[in-house]
Amino acid sequence: MTAFSFTVEARDGRARAGRLATPHGAVDTPAFIPVGTAGAVKAVTCRDLVELGAQIILANTYHMMLRPGDALVAELGGLHAFTGWKRPFLTDSGGYQVFSLSGLRELTEEGVRFRSHLDGTPCFLSPERSIEVQMNLGADIVMAFDECPPWPAPREAVDEATARTTRWARRCRDAHRRDDQWLFGIVQGGVHLDLRERSAREITALGFPGHAIGGVSVGEPKEDRIRVLDHLDPLLPEREPRYLMGVGTPEDLIEGVARGVDLFDCVLPTRNARNGQIFTRRGRLAIRNARYRTDPRPPDPDCPCPTCRSASRAYLRHLHLAGEMTAAVLMTLHNLFFYLDMMRAMGQSIRLCRFGEFRAEALRTLAAAGESARSRDRS
Amino acid sequence: MTAFSFTVEARDGRARAGRLATPHGAVDTPAFIPVGTAGAVKAVTCRDLVELGAQIILANTYHMMLRPGDALVAELGGLHAFTGWKRPFLTDSGGYQVFSLSGLRELTEEGVRFRSHLDGTPCFLSPERSIEVQMNLGADIVMAFDECPPWPAPREAVDEATARTTRWARRCRDAHRRDDQWLFGIVQGGVHLDLRERSAREITALGFPGHAIGGVSVGEPKEDRIRVLDHLDPLLPEREPRYLMGVGTPEDLIEGVARGVDLFDCVLPTRNARNGQIFTRRGRLAIRNARYRTDPRPPDPDCPCPTCRSASRAYLRHLHLAGEMTAAVLMTLHNLFFYLDMMRAMGQSIRLCRFGEFRAEALRTLAAAGESARSRDRS
Repeated sequence: MTAFSFTVEARDGRARAGRLATPHGAVDTPAFIPVGTAGAVKAVTCRDLVELGAQIILANTYHMMLRPGDALVAELGGLHAFTGWKRPFLTDSGGYQVFSLSGLRELTEEGVRFRSHLDGTPCFLSPERSIEVQMNLGADIVMAFDECPPWPAPREAVDEATARTTRWARRCRDAHRRDDQWLFGIVQGGVHLDLRERSAREITALGFPGHAIGGVSVGEPKEDRIRVLDHLDPLLPEREPRYLMGVGTPEDLIEGVARGVDLFDCVLPTRNARNGQIFTRRGRLAIRNARYRTDPRPPDPDCPCPTCRSASRAYLRHLHLAGEMTAAVLMTLHNLFFYLDMMRAMGQSIRLCRFGEFRAEALRTLAAAGESARSRDRS
Repeated sequence: MTAFSFTVEARDGRARAGRLATPHGAVDTPAFIPVGTAGAVKAVTCRDLVELGAQIILANTYHMMLRPGDALVAELGGLHAFTGWKRPFLTDSGGYQVFSLSGLRELTEEGVRFRSHLDGTPCFLSPERSIEVQMNLGADIVMAFDECPPWPAPREAVDEATARTTRWARRCRDAHRRDDQWLFGIVQGGVHLDLRERSAREITALGFPGHAIGGVSVGEPKEDRIRVLDHLDPLLPEREPRYLMGVGTPEDLIEGVARGVDLFDCVLPTRNARNGQIFTRRGRLAIRNARYRTDPRPPDPDCPCPTCRSASRAYLRHLHLAGEMTAAVLMTLHNLFFYLDMMRAMGQSIRLCRFGEFRAEALRTLAAAGESARSRDRS
């Protein structure tokens, strides 16, 4: 366990800047975690990620257990050896995907029976099995198996899911045996502040070294999410890392940091890149738009990323419309750089006690283009 | 014109090592030219290509004129400015694609009317129009518009195509007006040595600074191609570069260099990478093969490329089967490195007067796996 630590090194208001140490290196927080669903961040290589400044990536337990299988990954030395990514890994529990991707599900107190979305094979996930898979995968940070109710859902359903999440969290804690992994608990409770509060008290009582806020960005209004974050901030241990799962837009990340969140993951920068949407400091641009046909400017004139140093909007538009894979590569590189760079800038502004100014200015410029935004996208 | 030169710096048997200087930098020969069909080598970036050691890339006139259009590329400053590739570019004439890709064609002495394979739009290419497009695109090396007959074809058809290629070459020469481009002639003649000889005499008489051997790798037996190369070697100007278009496998490149060829292009390394076929010093491997399921070795244990330094066969197989774009990226990086590195090794062996040993050893080890090979693949 000694390789692990988390230190809050600076505060500005409720925003925190810190450092999370793991056996595979440190992560400066606040941090964005690129999503490598099947063990690779789509369209880019590990070398690209290092160059962009990514310090940690996520692999999905659900996807990896189905293909290539966690036993195979374990046989080949775990995720780090298997993928060549030598920095920290985080795996989720599989719970979110079971409830959003797989076919017919049967939920019992024991766990969830479901069918693989790939080929219909019957599968089973439970707290114990999720932890077993995650121990096989060997990420540095692993997550408790939770029940993530949809939004909207009847309050009773959220109540029951929240209670079950606590019971399952205890089973996860008891099943976990690798001391080179940190197991985080997950707080549920939907948009109900009393359920969130109960969940936070129950989960934090189990002694996890870090906590995630789950069940957000599933379609609920942004205002509800903000209320949940505001409410949870004083309930989560000050000295432990906080991870807002599956969030979100640049604006969401800023608002999360403003409410004491340290870690975020989301497929938005990578998925939207493949769909031709580019994040810039002045809002998003849809590269297929005819207005970019002869636009010689880089995607984001203020950006020092490899793509913005060499590619024009006109070129990216051409490659995207031609269905060229290189379009996805170039736009993924930019979008990830944009996200990672924004987190670095936020951390710096917190250390300089200028986060308030950063937040106001960033939100102002991000709103410039005013294209519509979807806040949730998790594979 | 002063920026251009070609110097044969070393010979070993009929193999040559030299240097082709262009306004955008020099190319060490023998050289392999990665194919960037639509203005990008599929799945990789210009920075990747520089790192792999590519000194020149190819863009297809046919594809670029249809999308995004040569006028747009010219408006944005030509291929170098448009794509961000600052090293030499070569464009083909469009002839090959017109005859292989497009719909209904009407061939006259004036040129070829055809329909775009994208949307059926009526189009026209002639010697003058091909040169106009290539002047708009602004590559360093451009090609005469030729008629490339299929294989097999009646001798009379090849005869007529060869004669027309000469007439068209003269029109191309007369239409070309950019002194920052070198225009190469193309020798046709199919597998008929007398037609090849006549074509070589007619085309070389037109005073081009370099020559391509066209109409090969269209399905003809390898032995016929070798006979053509053997026959043409003494007929082409010794001091000018020779370019074997659309070729080929590693073995083809070695046999071409052995017969005095300086330049090659082919989609094999890039296309096959996307299809999961990896070129190695010991033959090819089909990454989807079950035997690689748990294989922890890099694709080519003798290879220092970025992919072989970090990725196992098991990992690439997983990503390929999962349909992950990163699989194409990683395998394209390797295959291109393999091709470019083999050309470097050939050049070095020629300079050290050891090309014979290199050739024998390389052909022996390449045959190790003995998987079947397709020699032709040009987009």
